[in-house]
Amino acid sequence: MQIARVKGTVVSTNKAEKLMGLKLLVVKPIDLETMEEKGSPIVVVDAVGAGEGEVVMLVGGSSSRQTAATENKPVDQSIVAIIDHIDIDNKRVFQKFQ
Amino acid sequence: MQIARVKGTVVSTNKAEKLMGLKLLVVKPIDLETMEEKGSPIVVVDAVGAGEGEVVMLVGGSSSRQTAATENKPVDQSIVAIIDHIDIDNKRVFQKFQ
Amino acid sequence: MQIARVKGTVVSTNKAEKLMGLKLLVVKPIDLETMEEKGSPIVVVDAVGAGEGEVVMLVGGSSSRQTAATENKPVDQSIVAIIDHIDIDNKRVFQKFQ
Amino acid sequence: MQIARVKGTVVSTNKAEKLMGLKLLVVKPIDLETMEEKGSPIVVVDAVGAGEGEVVMLVGGSSSRQTAATENKPVDQSIVAIIDHIDIDNKRVFQKFQ
Amino acid sequence: MQIARVKGTVVSTNKAEKLMGLKLLVVKPIDLETMEEKGSPIVVVDAVGAGEGEVVMLVGGSSSRQTAATENKPVDQSIVAIIDHIDIDNKRVFQKFQ
Repeated sequence: MQIARVKGTVVSTNKAEKLMGLKLLVVKPIDLETMEEKGSPIVVVDAVGAGEGEVVMLVGGSSSRQTAATENKPVDQSIVAIIDHIDIDNKRVFQKFQ
Repeated sequence: MQIARVKGTVVSTNKAEKLMGLKLLVVKPIDLETMEEKGSPIVVVDAVGAGEGEVVMLVGGSSSRQTAATENKPVDQSIVAIIDHIDIDNKRVFQKFQ
Repeated sequence: MQIARVKGTVVSTNKAEKLMGLKLLVVKPIDLETMEEKGSPIVVVDAVGAGEGEVVMLVGGSSSRQTAATENKPVDQSIVAIIDHIDIDNKRVFQKFQ
Repeated sequence: MQIARVKGTVVSTNKAEKLMGLKLLVVKPIDLETMEEKGSPIVVVDAVGAGEGEVVMLVGGSSSRQTAATENKPVDQSIVAIIDHIDIDNKRVFQKFQ
Repeated sequence: MQIARVKGTVVSTNKAEKLMGLKLLVVKPIDLETMEEKGSPIVVVDAVGAGEGEVVMLVGGSSSRQTAATENKPVDQSIVAIIDHIDIDNKRVFQKFQ
């Protein structure tokens, strides 16, 4: 799964019927080596109520449809977790601001 | 999901039976960092009635079959939304022409 | 979906039982920007009776199994259409030889 | 499938309900040519009880949901095996420490 | 589908239950342009009884589970054919040693 930061929103009124009510967010992938944003922003569906600036976990492909919010929906990237902390090589590389 | 701009059309008469009646469009991916077109054009199925020049959202893989138009069809990229506006870091980076 | 040109054939006698009777072709991807071949050749299953030299549309992943010929088969790239013409920015960039 | 080494952990309390009870690990891909770590770390679900430092096999996409632990879960990369040894060109390139 | 050459084996005793009895092989992708090995080795499941040195066809993603050996198994790359010969542009670029 990919770690990313929430950066913005996408709004569409003319869309596939099954997308009605889903929240579309713009996120930017985070490189876990440096914890810096890296690569182009992507559009995802929010399945957990993530807010701008939060560090989240994305799930892609058919697995992005395996949540209560996204079941059978035409989406290929979903936010499925808000990250509390990440430890690599016994060092805390990310800690959510409380 | 990927943001792209509609650029053209593809026509085929000899095709898998399940593709009959589906509209094939050529789109070019848009980099959300710059809002410029970037990368090679791709062929997609239109599930929402998108017109040339419009900025749309694509869904790929098995999820591209999760619309009324594309269910069980041999397609791997579908247009599922026409974009109204995109906000990143509290700035409007795209606004559909009214 | 990807556009490609048929370049050759692959023959195998020792294969998964479900592949029996399927035709394996070698194709080369075409860049829609230049209409030139680009990238390494790949092996695909033919679901529409494509001939050598023809420009075709490929579908990948689970969607490549959504044709009468490929249903439930262990294939991940299928030819699902023979292309008649492609228009980009109101110019005809490809026209099948009649 | 991809070979990787377990490097750390990810903790999340606010997540999709189906992720409850699953262990999220950070792994780094290993290049089988050199047996060195290569590329950015990724987040995976542990389906076999892997420990830090162990060399494991990852399965991605819908196949990552084909274990007792991950069935129907919104995950797209799972650890499905702890590696004992790898032989390439009749040389042992990896042997698990006993 | 991808063409590759069998290079070695992977052994694991601690693995997902559904992987029991499956043979894990190391293969190296072959570039069909040059018929040379290219890129990093990958781990695959053997569904046809391939031997070291043989040139095989791989199927990836959910399609890799569409064989008698791999149905419902947590695998994302399977060997589904041993290649006899490959013709490109009317030239034989590969012929299996008899």
